[in-house]
Amino acid sequence: MDQVELAVQTVKTLSIDAVQKANSGHPGTPMGLADIAVLLWTNALRYDSKDPHWIGRDRFVLSAGHASMLLYSMLHLSGYDLPLKELENFRQWDSKTPGHPEVHHTPGVETTTGPLGQGVGNAVGFAIAQKMAEARFGEPFSGQRVWAIASDGDMMEGISGEASSIAAHLKLDNLVVFYDDNKITIEGDTKIAFTEDVGKRYEAYGWAVHRIDGHDRKAILEVIEKAKNEKGKPTFIVARTHIGHGAPHAVDTAEAHGAPLGAEEIAATKKIMGWDHPDFFVPEEVRALFKARNDALAEEKKTWQASFDAWKSKNAEKAKELEAFLAKKIPDTLLADLVKAIPEKEDATRNLSNVIQQAAAKLIPGLVGGSADLAPSTKTLIKGAAGIEAGEFGGRNFHFGIREHAMGAIVNAIALFGGFIPYGATFLIFSDYMRPSIRLSSLMKQQALWIFTHDSVMLGEDGPTHQPIEQLFSLRLIPGLAVVRPADALETAAAWAIALGRTEGPTAFALSRQKLPNIPRPAGFDNKTMLKGAYVLAEAEGGKPDLIIVATGSEVQLAIGAKKELEAKGKKVRVVSALSLEVFEEQDEAYRDSVLPKGVRAAGIEAGRSIGWQMYLGGDAIVVGIDRFGASAPDKVLAEKLGLTVKNVVEKILAAPARPSDAEAATKGGTADKG
Amino acid sequence: MDQVELAVQTVKTLSIDAVQKANSGHPGTPMGLADIAVLLWTNALRYDSKDPHWIGRDRFVLSAGHASMLLYSMLHLSGYDLPLKELENFRQWDSKTPGHPEVHHTPGVETTTGPLGQGVGNAVGFAIAQKMAEARFGEPFSGQRVWAIASDGDMMEGISGEASSIAAHLKLDNLVVFYDDNKITIEGDTKIAFTEDVGKRYEAYGWAVHRIDGHDRKAILEVIEKAKNEKGKPTFIVARTHIGHGAPHAVDTAEAHGAPLGAEEIAATKKIMGWDHPDFFVPEEVRALFKARNDALAEEKKTWQASFDAWKSKNAEKAKELEAFLAKKIPDTLLADLVKAIPEKEDATRNLSNVIQQAAAKLIPGLVGGSADLAPSTKTLIKGAAGIEAGEFGGRNFHFGIREHAMGAIVNAIALFGGFIPYGATFLIFSDYMRPSIRLSSLMKQQALWIFTHDSVMLGEDGPTHQPIEQLFSLRLIPGLAVVRPADALETAAAWAIALGRTEGPTAFALSRQKLPNIPRPAGFDNKTMLKGAYVLAEAEGGKPDLIIVATGSEVQLAIGAKKELEAKGKKVRVVSALSLEVFEEQDEAYRDSVLPKGVRAAGIEAGRSIGWQMYLGGDAIVVGIDRFGASAPDKVLAEKLGLTVKNVVEKILAAPARPSDAEAATKGGTADKG
Repeated sequence: MDQVELAVQTVKTLSIDAVQKANSGHPGTPMGLADIAVLLWTNALRYDSKDPHWIGRDRFVLSAGHASMLLYSMLHLSGYDLPLKELENFRQWDSKTPGHPEVHHTPGVETTTGPLGQGVGNAVGFAIAQKMAEARFGEPFSGQRVWAIASDGDMMEGISGEASSIAAHLKLDNLVVFYDDNKITIEGDTKIAFTEDVGKRYEAYGWAVHRIDGHDRKAILEVIEKAKNEKGKPTFIVARTHIGHGAPHAVDTAEAHGAPLGAEEIAATKKIMGWDHPDFFVPEEVRALFKARNDALAEEKKTWQASFDAWKSKNAEKAKELEAFLAKKIPDTLLADLVKAIPEKEDATRNLSNVIQQAAAKLIPGLVGGSADLAPSTKTLIKGAAGIEAGEFGGRNFHFGIREHAMGAIVNAIALFGGFIPYGATFLIFSDYMRPSIRLSSLMKQQALWIFTHDSVMLGEDGPTHQPIEQLFSLRLIPGLAVVRPADALETAAAWAIALGRTEGPTAFALSRQKLPNIPRPAGFDNKTMLKGAYVLAEAEGGKPDLIIVATGSEVQLAIGAKKELEAKGKKVRVVSALSLEVFEEQDEAYRDSVLPKGVRAAGIEAGRSIGWQMYLGGDAIVVGIDRFGASAPDKVLAEKLGLTVKNVVEKILAAPARPSDAEAATKGGTADKG
Repeated sequence: MDQVELAVQTVKTLSIDAVQKANSGHPGTPMGLADIAVLLWTNALRYDSKDPHWIGRDRFVLSAGHASMLLYSMLHLSGYDLPLKELENFRQWDSKTPGHPEVHHTPGVETTTGPLGQGVGNAVGFAIAQKMAEARFGEPFSGQRVWAIASDGDMMEGISGEASSIAAHLKLDNLVVFYDDNKITIEGDTKIAFTEDVGKRYEAYGWAVHRIDGHDRKAILEVIEKAKNEKGKPTFIVARTHIGHGAPHAVDTAEAHGAPLGAEEIAATKKIMGWDHPDFFVPEEVRALFKARNDALAEEKKTWQASFDAWKSKNAEKAKELEAFLAKKIPDTLLADLVKAIPEKEDATRNLSNVIQQAAAKLIPGLVGGSADLAPSTKTLIKGAAGIEAGEFGGRNFHFGIREHAMGAIVNAIALFGGFIPYGATFLIFSDYMRPSIRLSSLMKQQALWIFTHDSVMLGEDGPTHQPIEQLFSLRLIPGLAVVRPADALETAAAWAIALGRTEGPTAFALSRQKLPNIPRPAGFDNKTMLKGAYVLAEAEGGKPDLIIVATGSEVQLAIGAKKELEAKGKKVRVVSALSLEVFEEQDEAYRDSVLPKGVRAAGIEAGRSIGWQMYLGGDAIVVGIDRFGASAPDKVLAEKLGLTVKNVVEKILAAPARPSDAEAATKGGTADKG
């Protein structure tokens, strides 16, 4: 039997053995894709399994993340640090082989996939990043390709359509997607829900489309060669495969998708193959095949390295730039540098952010990004930099089109690629359109910047469909994501400093449409205090505070106004500006207690849902929020109607019931308790 | 000048006058679409402006919701209760003319649009609902069509691709979409981001595609006729239009999209038209045109009414059914009926829900729905009912494919259509993929049921990409949406009763993958108590509680277990089951205080983010939640590792610092306060 056939059998048996042992997983898709994967790895994919982060590598994306055993099998065979015992521990706590591939968790896994469609968006993002890196540095990044495998589910999800339209628009001829056309999804035959002509759809986007039998090895090799030689278009390969290929009864059934084949079917499958080995077996011939491939790749890498070394000595300046780029170096003086950029005039934080972003862009060449067709409103263009267009990848400004979700997945992959600090911008309300990608940026610990403007009902006339209410706290709920909502120019600079300093996680900006006043800081204020997320912006007049008002962004001015009125009535009021509740939570307890001492009554003001504040401010906190949908009207009218006024804040605070002592409360509670 | 030309000019001038007066809005698109809209209204669209809810009407969907002045102009001219003074109050507080069209706010508006792509999904949903109503009741619903106008933005958003694939799959020949191909978006020419062949893409989905000049009235009329006669395919019309059509300088510019034209350009536009009238002027000839159209439609309606009356007398039984259907009648004994359906065996709430859903489906013929290709896992098929397929619209089970977002928009429109109570199902984690549609279901106050299963990390091996953490509270943040998370069989019945009883709002179910024990209720327990959202499930032994543990869903069993252990240590512990925090919030204060008396220390347990609980339980509540991403492992291992155990709950409660009296706390706070 030839080595390739043996390798295909190995991938199939490793996959079905692992799923069977875990008693959980997806055996059918790895079986259906084994032919393509083995040929791709042994003929096309450029990698160094001993140096998984080699900058000259190709990227492989398994968008069909549920077929993770396919990828783990390939990584094991290719010599990555993924021993057989990890495959035997598939889907177990602390194993390197989780249910869906997770980047940074398993060597060789380039991105976390599983939520369908995201991987296609990531593949497009990798292809863009490669062209951008090549445009900047040339040779070291040339000749790289991105290979992806996508499932029916990936094709049905809207995000893949958005990303694929962008891919053809940008003429990404370094991108090849195999569509695993196996005609089976969880509910059964795809004909119950999915009868479009996917290949023709991709032609309409502008891709080069090929149709093959996904088990015809000659056809696979030929199409790989065609894809490598394609110019000006990404390649889409409709590969007709059979889920559960090789299993006598499970083949072409929905049952093969998401459950172990069962001992009997596995035995039957192996018998038909003539596979008479223990579980998790890899024949020597297969080891030899991959060794030969790795040897060949080692030669390729040598050539690459020699050329890279030559490039470095010829381009000393560029080489230094590349090093800095890859290290994502941030100057120590960043905050001070950004503060210097602050314009004199008061403005909306989206406009201030634009000015500060220009300074950041000068300091950090890897800062690139764009908007989902809202740049004139989100104010996120980098001035003096070109747009990113087909054949013009030296630019820094993306035009993502009205495709928030694809923007999310593309930005994630640009961050994963390395070097770049990418951002994606839209209105805060439309963060809902890209929430799965934002979540993944956090799960993958990527420094992606999500710039959301028009961050409250104060966007005015566009009305409730465009006015965020629940978005601030719903973003704060994503573990690891920091939300920054600056109150004025200084805080906008601090917001950028926080975001650029958070190298292992994403940051979401919430910026105002409307002009905000600059708020005076206390004498001797150290700007670095803002980097702690929340801080005392104005101390109570005449001693210890008996009330602390905490506000964010555009509502900080209301806190300042309320303080003045309340102090005229004899209250002692501290104002805390909470630029980022998540960053504040990361501070030590002593600092947090110094800002929000336990036992002092607190009030929170934010133009959004009031749920959530009590965790920070206590259960009896007075919260002035908005717990209804907004309405279409000019912003000043909305402020009046929805209570975003100093008058309403003061009234709410004065009307709040006195704080009962715990002893009283316990009694009261006891008597009220008739339940 | 002919009446049509005058009408087109009227629509254009009303639109630019309104935007100018509001100093906010989108004038260019109404100008570009005026030809199509006038011809559609005067030649094709079937409506009765004096009876906007006429069940025999066509539906019109302005997916490009920002062009709201187009719709308001048409509604005004067609005689809806939308006087000129409302157009003059465009985008003002309390006007009937908000920035984007809002259903139930403005007569004649069928759905709330503005978030791009949603309207295309709604249009598909309306077309499906019409075919379903026709399959059930015949004549009264026959001959209806759905007409939609979509923009470049609608075409770029993934949701429209998902919905359009479904539309062709279901052969919705009652659906016509005009694509306003004006080549301009906010960032400029569409060529910067959008160069695919949209018409060809729609051919690939399986639509009948026509290409016309959107200002050629003869072509518009011809294509409308073609669309009306199309069989077996929805119709997609690529209409090349010019944004700002008629404005000498603003035409074909991005500036015409989202800002007033300005007095000068308006004057120039009107001068070219020969329009010498005051602002907001409607010529008599135009009134006459629409009067003639309304008269013709009145005749059509008379015919329809006669045929409907005849149908009713011939089909007395069906007519009664139709009445009940349209009234969405829910039996008074609903909860009791559902409780009767509960199976004896303990089970996962997703399985229990399936059994109870069968009972609900028998009682409520309008209950229809489906899953985003997860029916075998979400357990949401209605037994004995057919699938909904092309030509088979008498069924009740949808196969939405792996298209959560389109599912959301389609379900919304089926609810809007009337009669049906639709549901859409997927895993809780994938609620993120359809969040914009869920939000709209709430903004539109629609009785849409969102059935989310696999509601915690306890889904196990699929890992963190599939394990919801922040989703429960992020859904709770959507104003007006009720989340129900049942703890056992009885609560699952109550969850359905709550959802079916909430006729003016959506409900999201959170159901477990894993088996849950049935929990004994106190003696004399009235099942109706569960409809209050939260209730005392187990009272403290031996007197007033000194601790109340509140839990939801699968964590209620942990609360019961912890109670037992803590009471063995001398604590007096009440357990409250919070089936729905939103429903609980709607109860009167006396009831809420009886369940959660102020002053009694509380603990919350839920397998999700801990942020949010403090609002309900007090700032010093002990919350046992999960504030990190999950991991891939068997569910029992995850429960141990992530602290979803009685042992951990008891430890957390015992380890919590004693509650300081407020007096102490104030002092402490004061001294800690060095900030």
